[in-house]
Amino acid sequence: MFESAEVGHKLDRAEYEKEVPKLREALLNAQYDLFERARFAVVVLLSGLGGSGRSETANRFNEWMDPRHLHTHTFGPPNALERERPAAWRYWQALPPKGSIGVFLNAWYHDLLAGRTVDGIDSADLQRSLREIRQLETTLADEGVLLVKIWFHLARDDQRKRLKDLADDPRTRWRVTEDDLAQLKIYNRYRDVAEHALRETSTAEAPWMIVEATDPRYRDVAVGRILLKTVRERIDRPGARVRPVTAAPVVARPVNVKVLREVDLSKKLDPKDYHKQLAKHQERLAALTRRKKFGRRSMVAVFEGQGAAGKGSSIRRITYALDARQYTVVPVGPPTEAERAQPYFWRFWRQLPGHGQIAIFDRSWYGRVLAERVEGLCPAGDWMRAYREINDFEEQLLRNGTIVVKFWLQISKEEQLRRFKALEGTPFKRFKVTPEDWRNRKRWNAYEEAAADMIDRTSTEIAPWMIVEAEDKYYARVKILRTLARMLADAL
Amino acid sequence: MFESAEVGHKLDRAEYEKEVPKLREALLNAQYDLFERARFAVVVLLSGLGGSGRSETANRFNEWMDPRHLHTHTFGPPNALERERPAAWRYWQALPPKGSIGVFLNAWYHDLLAGRTVDGIDSADLQRSLREIRQLETTLADEGVLLVKIWFHLARDDQRKRLKDLADDPRTRWRVTEDDLAQLKIYNRYRDVAEHALRETSTAEAPWMIVEATDPRYRDVAVGRILLKTVRERIDRPGARVRPVTAAPVVARPVNVKVLREVDLSKKLDPKDYHKQLAKHQERLAALTRRKKFGRRSMVAVFEGQGAAGKGSSIRRITYALDARQYTVVPVGPPTEAERAQPYFWRFWRQLPGHGQIAIFDRSWYGRVLAERVEGLCPAGDWMRAYREINDFEEQLLRNGTIVVKFWLQISKEEQLRRFKALEGTPFKRFKVTPEDWRNRKRWNAYEEAAADMIDRTSTEIAPWMIVEAEDKYYARVKILRTLARMLADAL
Repeated sequence: MFESAEVGHKLDRAEYEKEVPKLREALLNAQYDLFERARFAVVVLLSGLGGSGRSETANRFNEWMDPRHLHTHTFGPPNALERERPAAWRYWQALPPKGSIGVFLNAWYHDLLAGRTVDGIDSADLQRSLREIRQLETTLADEGVLLVKIWFHLARDDQRKRLKDLADDPRTRWRVTEDDLAQLKIYNRYRDVAEHALRETSTAEAPWMIVEATDPRYRDVAVGRILLKTVRERIDRPGARVRPVTAAPVVARPVNVKVLREVDLSKKLDPKDYHKQLAKHQERLAALTRRKKFGRRSMVAVFEGQGAAGKGSSIRRITYALDARQYTVVPVGPPTEAERAQPYFWRFWRQLPGHGQIAIFDRSWYGRVLAERVEGLCPAGDWMRAYREINDFEEQLLRNGTIVVKFWLQISKEEQLRRFKALEGTPFKRFKVTPEDWRNRKRWNAYEEAAADMIDRTSTEIAPWMIVEAEDKYYARVKILRTLARMLADAL
Repeated sequence: MFESAEVGHKLDRAEYEKEVPKLREALLNAQYDLFERARFAVVVLLSGLGGSGRSETANRFNEWMDPRHLHTHTFGPPNALERERPAAWRYWQALPPKGSIGVFLNAWYHDLLAGRTVDGIDSADLQRSLREIRQLETTLADEGVLLVKIWFHLARDDQRKRLKDLADDPRTRWRVTEDDLAQLKIYNRYRDVAEHALRETSTAEAPWMIVEATDPRYRDVAVGRILLKTVRERIDRPGARVRPVTAAPVVARPVNVKVLREVDLSKKLDPKDYHKQLAKHQERLAALTRRKKFGRRSMVAVFEGQGAAGKGSSIRRITYALDARQYTVVPVGPPTEAERAQPYFWRFWRQLPGHGQIAIFDRSWYGRVLAERVEGLCPAGDWMRAYREINDFEEQLLRNGTIVVKFWLQISKEEQLRRFKALEGTPFKRFKVTPEDWRNRKRWNAYEEAAADMIDRTSTEIAPWMIVEAEDKYYARVKILRTLARMLADAL
């Protein structure tokens, strides 16, 4: 695969100086069109062999383009906060907003290749990492992010020469790392693993482009042209991006709402029992979250349910048992300006807890397959692919050691009406019932169907939905606390 | 001072239940008025003795008010990222946007009082910390943030009893920390230091309110009422906030532009010398930033100057010598929506570098005393107080071990015209000259005066301005690199 990038491509100074002004102007125009009209985000991944000049090219971009719409991120060894979260967390943080370009050096392909050469290409670990990368890239592409993946290649002798030249110049000596030298020693093996990884991740929406990096002038112009062409194509033919939806086919199952309709809503707890049991489980939860082992884990709790199902009041019963320093409650409402300029999952990634921390989501990423689906706020393709994205997201959390607990609070339509009326009758609770709640109530059946579909498709073995009989709020709260404490105890 | 908070204030259950519904409704209405009309930020500091129930009150607020516009932050021991930055960094990060309320537990007064009791109230360290707190609070108040500072007091016996009650209940036992118990042992001393600190920081714009915290019902209602009253007053009488400007009086000195007019713009460097010297200083800078000692320091470099003075191209000569992982270039333009909802300095605090990191600002916090002053984008009082705020800000950086370097690039009006025309004649550089640049050029004299005032008032002993003769770009770049390397070498 790399043969055609070992033919000795070069650009002499005269050609370069003729070429660059035109290229710069075209890149700038593309930047402004992107910012003013097209409004999608571009992520340029510069990956490749040590000494191939990734950061030189990034510097060149900063010189050629308008730095106000260009953000460069170089990823080093993960810092303390990054180590406590899934590997993709820092990439999500660094995503450029719509209308601008992010240049990523040493991003996820660096993580992938680091240290792989020893295991070879058959390890289960490599396969899993490749799958995760494809998931991430598919999600970004589906969200309209343009991915430009460039691999800087050097033939073995050229890599040796480049590293020697860098080491000989006192200004660039520091660029040559021990990793680079180690890589050079196992050149063939590294190339094979890289070739495998590139093949496995070169997809229709994010194909790899290999650039021969021996001659810096050739390299920079080639990369500039690739960026220009890719961005320009998408700007000029936005419709061309429409891709087949990657969601699994929907099987019509008119009876799957049964799972919700058959919930036994008669379950009750009398007030005396309630106070006793609540105290018991709060005490247990308090003790568990203070265990040393939890200092190396984290927890995410999700609350979904129809309006007035009791999400907020249940959450308060949990936080009562917790140290204020260790939890955050994230109420999920309509997205802000900054959130609208990013892929859907961006705002949830930002809220992931560190070690010893608990994030409680009052509504969550399930909004896409609930309200957004029912209200028609996003195209069907978007919510259909969301099931897969959600499962991928939660899988990453679990693999990171995060305990994921998801509660669906089920009430009857009649009970909702009683609660709405009671809330509206209490001046200081009136705000809890909005016109939107009444509107949603009219679509009760559609919400019920969406919730049943959601439970069907995202109640995985590793992150099952807990359906809570919430008609009696005492019963519901105790069940929630008991479940949380049990799941925490099981995990520790 | 605390005597009137030791009289045994209580609220019986009947009174409480009569009071709370009214209070909640009024608080909610205040929240909506704040969010929809008044648009200022509120920071509630809950401070006080161990066991006095700060987090219980915070929980109560979450129950009483609309959690969408209420953000609670509890500050524990600083994490790795926080320890590398000035103490105030994490408070700036946590500020609520306009229209909402932030409740801060254990914020700056906790930092202040922790461990002070041993030194007593005369230590220079305590005095300096008090001054920093006043600076921070004055800045926030000047920016329109409403500060509500509440101190929870307990008489000695009441503190002992509260801590015992908490320790006896298995659900709350964890709330009693070793710090709390240590505090109880030196109750009188702690009270004296706290009293001193409260007196010293009770200002007109941010007075302390002391609440007797023995009875939880009384405490929560009292705090709720204080919050309601303070917020309501500001909403209903926004004009009442206009405060005397705290900037030092302006002494008319018509000749202070001399400092700029007398810069020797004839300084030149021929291209051969330039390349040799540039390489030499880049080499030195590269070596210095890689020294182990710099791993415990950080650097902030500021670039200001008229349009086309060569800020961007000078910055690129610096970054060429740096590892892409260790620097960020921050181009400062008009504020975004999120930035407009925060105090002026918020966006600069966010960009502060960690250990071993360099942040280069292409334009900076000096915008307020340059463009905003000249273009009339903010009231005179705002840019006048900015000099003090800037000095305070930079002092905090320096005390944190951050190396601060500030460059003013000086060119002549004629040279600017030549550069504008040359840029406009080059297609790929055309974007660098905007209609705004031409507009600013018309106000050359006003900018010159603003720059001279700025240098006058913010060129402190600890963070002096470096005036760079930038008529010859070669001379300027070499001087900048040489200065940077020298200042770094001096600091390490």
